[in-house]
Amino acid sequence: MRANYKMQRLFVADDLASGAAFDADPQQSHYLAHVLRLGEGAEVLLFNGRDGEWSARIAGKTKKAVRLEVLEIQRPQPVHPDLVYCFAPLKVGRLDYLVQKAVEMGAGTMVPVITQHTQMKPGIDRLRANAVEAAEQCGILAIPEVREAVKLEQLLAGWDKERRLIFCDEDASTNNPMATLRSIQERKLALLVGPEGGFSDDERRMLRALPFVTAIPLGPRILRADTAAVAALAVIQATIGDW
Amino acid sequence: MRANYKMQRLFVADDLASGAAFDADPQQSHYLAHVLRLGEGAEVLLFNGRDGEWSARIAGKTKKAVRLEVLEIQRPQPVHPDLVYCFAPLKVGRLDYLVQKAVEMGAGTMVPVITQHTQMKPGIDRLRANAVEAAEQCGILAIPEVREAVKLEQLLAGWDKERRLIFCDEDASTNNPMATLRSIQERKLALLVGPEGGFSDDERRMLRALPFVTAIPLGPRILRADTAAVAALAVIQATIGDW
Repeated sequence: MRANYKMQRLFVADDLASGAAFDADPQQSHYLAHVLRLGEGAEVLLFNGRDGEWSARIAGKTKKAVRLEVLEIQRPQPVHPDLVYCFAPLKVGRLDYLVQKAVEMGAGTMVPVITQHTQMKPGIDRLRANAVEAAEQCGILAIPEVREAVKLEQLLAGWDKERRLIFCDEDASTNNPMATLRSIQERKLALLVGPEGGFSDDERRMLRALPFVTAIPLGPRILRADTAAVAALAVIQATIGDW
Repeated sequence: MRANYKMQRLFVADDLASGAAFDADPQQSHYLAHVLRLGEGAEVLLFNGRDGEWSARIAGKTKKAVRLEVLEIQRPQPVHPDLVYCFAPLKVGRLDYLVQKAVEMGAGTMVPVITQHTQMKPGIDRLRANAVEAAEQCGILAIPEVREAVKLEQLLAGWDKERRLIFCDEDASTNNPMATLRSIQERKLALLVGPEGGFSDDERRMLRALPFVTAIPLGPRILRADTAAVAALAVIQATIGDW
């Protein structure tokens, strides 16, 4: 919500340090040279998910590439968010949105989870590209790790018992997510959001029976999965997260 | 998040009562007859924002229209949500989304607000259509009222002093929105979300100086306006709203 969209932010693979210089990749070079039409000397912001955010200047342009020269660090690399966000993939359009929002809301790791009602298997590359794009656009320096998709049973079988798994359950026994969240002892948290069709009854029974799982309600209305994701992340971050 | 997307829900203008019968409008008739290919006797759900949700059956089909016969009430009309949602219009795509999400999150009234950094003036009809579509898709029976757009100054000048206006301020003096929200006395609430570029410094000063305004932070990350809307609505609903 802040007007810092002025200077172009680019995610790069290269290491960032004062004086470092490299060519932007072909896509970014095209964007800088022909879409933004930035000339030599123009400044941009660079981040790589490791070295913080740096100012850089366009040091030269060839037909093939735009040369970037790293200037000064603007923001140090933050601690990588610990929050693990497990989600059943949605249809592509909504999935792009869901990933983008999860990045904005501070998810550190994203795990696509295949459930009984899951509609599709996600393209991991597309998820990663969405995560990078969201970070570029929203001034976020930590790029979430996007894991390979797993079946719900696998996810739960291999779960780290010291990480509390919060799942959004329209039939949760409480109607107060705050009190439930505040009662959580674990510092390590994960959120599980089901597919558009919701979890199956079997899945909900299985989840509720697990000692490391906490079910929270998300109000009286039926939320679409992508809305539920943002709502749950907001409530978690504001109650026991990094807000 | 529940699998109740099976039976088609339609918003209709007509009064709903047992035995009532009427033709679906041309667009809905086309959708029922030629997209869903529903035959005579097929059942749908109808709501009009006044009479609750009713089952209905396709009583007949002509070239021009699908005739609907109202059967039984399924859910009574809920109390209309009191929450007033004031928002600076965004670019069309994101605006559609923002309206849809606000409906899901329980906004009762929507007020487009023109601020210094607002990009565009919204088409009210499109906003209303989005609100109806979101209600149709998400099982919501109360269609939010969509007001005409107003300038921020006008909105504040005519404000009901008994309604607390919560606004998302990245520079709020606290980092704990929960405590701030719990300290609110008023039962009547409104949320104000700024444009993509945020509020201007003048606007923030003006808002902070008003006795009926409460500023809340939305965490350490910069949220896009449409994300901030869902996040703020979630935190408000969960803390002092209708969850």
